[in-house]
Amino acid sequence: MRLKNVKGAYEIIENSKYVITENNYQTSNIFNNKNPIYLEIGTGKGNFIYQNALENPNINFIGVEKYDSVLIRALEKQNQNPLSNLYFFKMDALNIDKYFKKQIDLIYLNFSDPWPKDRHAKRRLTHPNFLKKYDKIFRGKPEIIMKTDNRHLFEYSIKSFTDYGYKIEDICLDLHKENTYNIETEYEIKFHNLGYPIYKIHVKK
Amino acid sequence: MRLKNVKGAYEIIENSKYVITENNYQTSNIFNNKNPIYLEIGTGKGNFIYQNALENPNINFIGVEKYDSVLIRALEKQNQNPLSNLYFFKMDALNIDKYFKKQIDLIYLNFSDPWPKDRHAKRRLTHPNFLKKYDKIFRGKPEIIMKTDNRHLFEYSIKSFTDYGYKIEDICLDLHKENTYNIETEYEIKFHNLGYPIYKIHVKK
Repeated sequence: MRLKNVKGAYEIIENSKYVITENNYQTSNIFNNKNPIYLEIGTGKGNFIYQNALENPNINFIGVEKYDSVLIRALEKQNQNPLSNLYFFKMDALNIDKYFKKQIDLIYLNFSDPWPKDRHAKRRLTHPNFLKKYDKIFRGKPEIIMKTDNRHLFEYSIKSFTDYGYKIEDICLDLHKENTYNIETEYEIKFHNLGYPIYKIHVKK
Repeated sequence: MRLKNVKGAYEIIENSKYVITENNYQTSNIFNNKNPIYLEIGTGKGNFIYQNALENPNINFIGVEKYDSVLIRALEKQNQNPLSNLYFFKMDALNIDKYFKKQIDLIYLNFSDPWPKDRHAKRRLTHPNFLKKYDKIFRGKPEIIMKTDNRHLFEYSIKSFTDYGYKIEDICLDLHKENTYNIETEYEIKFHNLGYPIYKIHVKK
């Protein structure tokens, strides 16, 4: 993703009551309820998680994002019409198991950075090193839903998930040709419009 | 596949020295050597298996096909330039474990009938009932390589293989965009030319 610098984004994000940062993190339960918590890693501009939170008030959502320049767009949606079941967490996904311990019920990975070079495979969010981290943050049985337009990342991830012991709950190799309920991300709209198939996999352990 | 009736095909096939049929089957080792045996289930017009046998003289190949009208085309290739490492077996794949016992090293499933209706799922060559049959015919560790242009069959098969305990060795969601060695089937040429992606998966237990 090519990122534009957004002036003032850093200060707005650090001071927002809807954003947890690695600087202001506290271990308290931010939601004050026992509803399930769904985590999106790489929330980007937030359309997916905001819509999801809007449509599912009995589920808590946390959007993890490390870049101010896109997180600010997600935050604008939340500022405009705040949802009590939605928070953002500004951090690098590498630190995810530092901040969450057995709290998360489901992880969404939407249009993650494909890191196409073999020597960068460890940075892919479906690399076994990340799957190991996720194991530590799930409250119950691990469950992940992934979407991407990147064929190589998807091929890699199918193998990585199943090698790691995940079972495939559902898989679709051209999501927009199916008549199923789907909340789109900003990326997805763009790449689907360019004619690329969107891949989706839902796995459980 | 829509099949044309080919006049005289039945007699030619029944009498060919290159074709085993359920009528003339004998348990002897047809190849008179101990080379590995690769089986293609649904050989169709035979381009894939003939080319494969031609390029790999130290591997034995058996093409299983139930329809005379396509098997006759495969047989014509063999008649024109006979290969000693290639035989055909005319039978219904349902009977596969009746004729082979711990003899096969690898199975190819190329562009199998997708049987799109849920109530016909049991007829798909990657249904667990078939995977069970294959278990009985493998000499060593089960190994299957599948290609198809049918998205729903492929989605189904990825799940079926991994649910059954197969590990993914390799998976490709658009084979013709990769620069890898690939022997095409007649079907594949046709559907690739129509712009469909060709899917491939290689699994092992």
